[in-house]
This record gives sequence, C-alpha cells and structure tokens, in this order.
Amino acid sequence: MPAQRTMNAPRFREKMERAGLDAVVLAAPENVLYTSGALITTMRSLRDRLAFSVLAADLNAMLVVCNIEESLSKRASWITDVRSYVERKEHPVDALVAALREKGWDRGRVGYEARFLPAGQFERLRSALPGVEWTPADDLIISVRAVKSQEEIARFRDAARATERAIHDAFARARPGDTEKSVNDRIMINMLDAGADSITHSVFGTGENALHAHAIPGSYPLTPGQVGRVDSGAEFGGYPSDLARSLGVGQVPQHMLDAYKRLRMVQRETIDFLRPGRTGAEVFTFCKDAYGRHGLAFAMPHVGHGLAVLGGEMHEEPNLHPYNQVPLEPGMIMDVEPFYWDWERGFALHIEDTALVTDQGPVILSDATNTEELFIVT
Amino acid sequence: MPAQRTMNAPRFREKMERAGLDAVVLAAPENVLYTSGALITTMRSLRDRLAFSVLAADLNAMLVVCNIEESLSKRASWITDVRSYVERKEHPVDALVAALREKGWDRGRVGYEARFLPAGQFERLRSALPGVEWTPADDLIISVRAVKSQEEIARFRDAARATERAIHDAFARARPGDTEKSVNDRIMINMLDAGADSITHSVFGTGENALHAHAIPGSYPLTPGQVGRVDSGAEFGGYPSDLARSLGVGQVPQHMLDAYKRLRMVQRETIDFLRPGRTGAEVFTFCKDAYGRHGLAFAMPHVGHGLAVLGGEMHEEPNLHPYNQVPLEPGMIMDVEPFYWDWERGFALHIEDTALVTDQGPVILSDATNTEELFIVT
Repeated sequence: MPAQRTMNAPRFREKMERAGLDAVVLAAPENVLYTSGALITTMRSLRDRLAFSVLAADLNAMLVVCNIEESLSKRASWITDVRSYVERKEHPVDALVAALREKGWDRGRVGYEARFLPAGQFERLRSALPGVEWTPADDLIISVRAVKSQEEIARFRDAARATERAIHDAFARARPGDTEKSVNDRIMINMLDAGADSITHSVFGTGENALHAHAIPGSYPLTPGQVGRVDSGAEFGGYPSDLARSLGVGQVPQHMLDAYKRLRMVQRETIDFLRPGRTGAEVFTFCKDAYGRHGLAFAMPHVGHGLAVLGGEMHEEPNLHPYNQVPLEPGMIMDVEPFYWDWERGFALHIEDTALVTDQGPVILSDATNTEELFIVT
Repeated sequence: MPAQRTMNAPRFREKMERAGLDAVVLAAPENVLYTSGALITTMRSLRDRLAFSVLAADLNAMLVVCNIEESLSKRASWITDVRSYVERKEHPVDALVAALREKGWDRGRVGYEARFLPAGQFERLRSALPGVEWTPADDLIISVRAVKSQEEIARFRDAARATERAIHDAFARARPGDTEKSVNDRIMINMLDAGADSITHSVFGTGENALHAHAIPGSYPLTPGQVGRVDSGAEFGGYPSDLARSLGVGQVPQHMLDAYKRLRMVQRETIDFLRPGRTGAEVFTFCKDAYGRHGLAFAMPHVGHGLAVLGGEMHEEPNLHPYNQVPLEPGMIMDVEPFYWDWERGFALHIEDTALVTDQGPVILSDATNTEELFIVT
C-alpha cells in the first residue's frame, strides 16, 4: 500500500492551472519531500545525488532518484512510478530526460526551480528537451506549501509540543548556579529523546548574554535577579519546530516581570490578529503598534515567519515583515515571536509560538503550557 | 589587521593559470568560507541571501555579501574589498555585476560553479556580462581545496581530537544496561562541550542494530556479549570531524575480538598505503585485498573519503572508491573507514580515522588513543 499523501493536492492543482503549467520538475530537498513524501537525506550533502519529483497538473507523478535511494524512496513515497539512475554511471539529468520523454512530458509549459536547480544541470535539461517552455515555478510551490493539509498540521503540532515540553522540562530541572550551557544541553537532549532526528538550533542566554540574537550558551551561571531566553528547534521526520521561552532566576526586579507581561500581551494580541486576508505587512504594523500600546520599545526587522518541511528556507511564507503583501489564508501556520531587549538595563525577553490561521480565528499549536507569568527558577 | 589567510594560495594560482582563468566567482558556502575566511551561516538556510567570493588569478579578491552580513564578513575575512547589497531592495547578482565591472573583471575567461549556482542567478549574470566567457570551475576549486595548508591541517586535527575524546569519554562512562541512546547523547554533548558549533552526525548501534550503515540509536541496552560501533562528527568553526570507534560489552565472544583485531590491521595497513602518486582506486583495491589477507569478507562500495570545510559535499576528493583516478598528493587529508559486518552472526565493527598524506608517509591526525584492542565496557 502506498504511503498517505500529506501535500495540499487541491491547492497544487489550482495553482498549476492558474499558471498554465503542464508539469513541474522539483529538485530542492524540501520540495521533493513535500511533493513525494520521500525524505532523501543524502541529497542535502551530495550535490550530484540529484532527485527529481515531477508532477503533472493532474497529480500524475513520478520520482527519479539515485539507485542507492530507490528502495527507501519506494517505501516512503505515495508516488508509485519511481525510476532510478546508477550513480557515477548515468547522469541524473539524462535519466530525468528519458523519463519525461516516456511520460510525454517533453513538451508544453514545464515549471522548474530557477532559484535552486544548478545552472549546469538546467543547461543539460534544456538542451535535451528543446520542445519545452521552461518556466520558473519557485514561488508557485512555496505558495502551495504555505497552506498546510490536516496531516501536516498534525505533524507541525506534534513537533511544536515536543519542543515545548523539552524546554519546560529543562527549565523545571534548572537551579540557580547551573550554567547556561547545561540548561541548553538538556533542552537538546530532551528534543532528541522526544524523537527529533536533528537539532536545528538552540540558543540560550541570560543577563546581558540574552541580548544577542544568536547567543552561544557558555559557562555563565544562572544568577538570581536575572532573566534569560531560549530559542530552540529541531526536525521531526522532516517537520521542524521553532519556539522561544523566557525565564527568570530567583528574585527578579519588578520592571523585568512587567516587561515580560507586556511582551506576552503583545504576542497574544498579534496572534489574535492573524486572520485570513490580512497581509504580513499588516500583521507587522499591528505588532509594532502593540509594543507602543503596552509601553515597550520596538526594534524588530520582522515579527514572525512561516514554517516549512525540512525548514524550507528558514524564513518561509507567510513572512511577517513590512514589505510582505501576501494575504493570510486559512491553513497557513506561522511563528509569532516578539523579542524585547533593553540594552541599558542589560536584559532581553523572547516568546515564540506556532499558530494556525483558521476561519474561526487563530489556534496556537503548542500545548496549553502557561506562559502568562514568567517562569521562575528557584 | 585582516584575518590570516588559511587557503592554499600557491595551489590556487597554479590551477587558475593552468585553466587559463582570469577570475573565478564562487557562491557555494564551503567555497566562500574557504576562499574568504567568512563563515556566513545564513547562506545555508536563505537561498536568496547569496554571497560571492571573487578571486583573480593573482589572488586580488573581493567579497559581495548581504548588508546584514557585512560587519561579520569584514571582521572574519582576509579580503579587504567587501561590498554589500541591501536585501529585498537590490538583487545580489546586480551587485556582483556592478562590482565585477568596476574591477575590470567583466571580460575574459571567468570560472563559475555550474553544479551549484542556481540557473536563474546564472542567467541574470550571463545576460548582464556578455563579454565574459563563463567556464565551469567546480572541479578546479575542489582540487585546490583537497591539498590543505598548515593552518587548515591544524584545524582538522583539533576537530578530530576533540571528537575522539568525546567518543572515548562516553565509552569510559558507559555501563552494561545503559541504552544506546544515552551513550550517543553523551557523545554529542561532549562534542558540543568541546566547542562544536553543530553536530553533523552521530550514529551508534550495538548487536544487530550496528549492521545498518546509519543506525538510529534507541532504548536498546548495552548487552554483555555484544559489540557495537559509533560514527560521529561535528563542525568546529566550519572544520568538520568524522570518526568511528567500536566497543564490546562484558565478555565478548572470541570471534568478535578476532574480527576487530583483523579490521584494525586492515585499517592501519590501508592508512600506511596512502602515499603520493597512488590513486583512490589503488587504495581501494589495496584495502579490499587486505580484508582478504586477514580473512575478512569485503563488501564496501568505498573505503574512505576526503574532508572539506563545512563538510563540503560529504564525499570530497580524494575519494577512495574503485573509479577514482585522482593521484594522492602531500597535504591531502582523508578518512579511512573499514567497516565489517557479519549478518549471519549479527554484529558489525567500524574504525575510522583521519590521516594526512606526506612525503614522509601518512600521519594519523587524531590522538594516540589506543585502538589496538577492542574497547570493553564493564
């Protein structure tokens, strides 16, 4: 029995039709995984071990992979037409060309990834198939991916919850005097224990160390009276997580507790503003104004971003920055991550959660862990 | 004061001259780091945040980066001519074109990475500079990188030693009954503690789990009478490590101890065979024959590979596989990793070390940790 398709098929068909494409050839690891279900990890580290997922507008599909990856791909993918090439003996593009000819996809308007497919490979493809009108389809596939299927939402939710538990457990075990590094190590171990295949990032800093966007945790001890923040993420079967939480140690000055409460309100109000039809730029402006309303200085270049399989390109649609004119749609998921820093008094706070846009209002995908009050290490 | 150049400059000049290139435009993260010293981590996750390192044959060089990465690049690089483009406002290729024109590098024969540079970006570059004869230079830069400088050798050595200590410490702490996962987690934490920026891989399996090339460590306990193996690596400031070690638990059957000793001899003899002038194919054949001489069945597709900054393409030159005709040269470093598996009796062993080719014979870069006898967990 073939694996269950997780991609958003109706949206794919609609976008293909609107773009007038007969087929699309995908080669970036996140797009091969998204459209085929096959996670071919060596694609990411061996540039010549190309894999191609080819889909016609009617979802008739085919996968072309290195023979070493054939059995894995057949098991993992819902695409039943899997072809392979022998590494070092055959050129992957030649195998793709032969397969496209056999399928009758060697003419018409075919999409490709102009921002990913290497120039040499594209040149070989174009020369071999002069009857094709090649059309960049990078934005098309990103736009398809931006609206998640039910199955995908469940996977992103599970990844977010596992990460939240990993952070919460490390916070609960922490004691004043523990090093930043030991707390951060525990978060990473917890994510791995929860089934993460790899850690994508985990930055933890307290006191002035928390001011740097990507603080490297060191031997600095958790010190009473200070606050800190962690931003962690991992990959669970190709589905990434990305969450931030803050903590305080012992007796924390009132102005820091206040700043946390205000930042928490900014975050929840911004999440509540995520409604279909609003653009990333509108959400950004709303969030910026919310900082002002709650008496916090604002200096962020963006306030959130989408999440994609394999992390996609890190900052995926929908992006919450001042120039983004893409309207939100039901089924989009995104991270909202207000960050607050006070260089003068030397502290920083950060809260990041993953939210799903629906017609009935936004839904936070992580657990109902209470973030209303700052977590205090005692 | 500019940073110290670590790249192999004389080799670069020689290869550029032989290829008749006036300049080369590099864009792959490992090549930008190698030629400039700047580790721009966001290049790896944001596909449009292109960075270009451009070198003329006389090593006159220039770096074109996103404005967000400009201060970091200026601090890290020995290239003093650093230019930047404003993300979302200017196209990175347009900034590159303007800089090439100003330098007078907008004509003649210029190398580019046909196997990396995306087709859309190359098309824009080619259209803007019709006077340039664009020439693929992927193999040229890989060949330059294959022979390491003294500074690079020191960095690869430090990475190998830190990794070896990480594994050895985890083995020394392990007790029968511990899970595979706990031993593997300890190895990863140790590498991070030793300064690794990220873990590239760490696979650990015992008993039958060790038979799979990329075993995922689970809750299976270390069981007396079994052997296991770990293959771990991390990135230290862009320099990767990759080592494998084997262990036994309690009383291990004599035939497994014997197999380990034989495999260790195969490995040392193969390392000793790494001499200037010999090809990867010759080393492969020698290693295969050594298995036979020592009474071990051989079934490996390759017996080792080179190592490159940022991991390069994982399997870098010099590759030790049957088709490789590239002769070894002094200054090349490579991993030799004989693997032995016995499906019938359900066990596997693996030893991997990093060696440097010199005119005076090969030098193992890892510490002198004794691998002569199988490490036994008691």
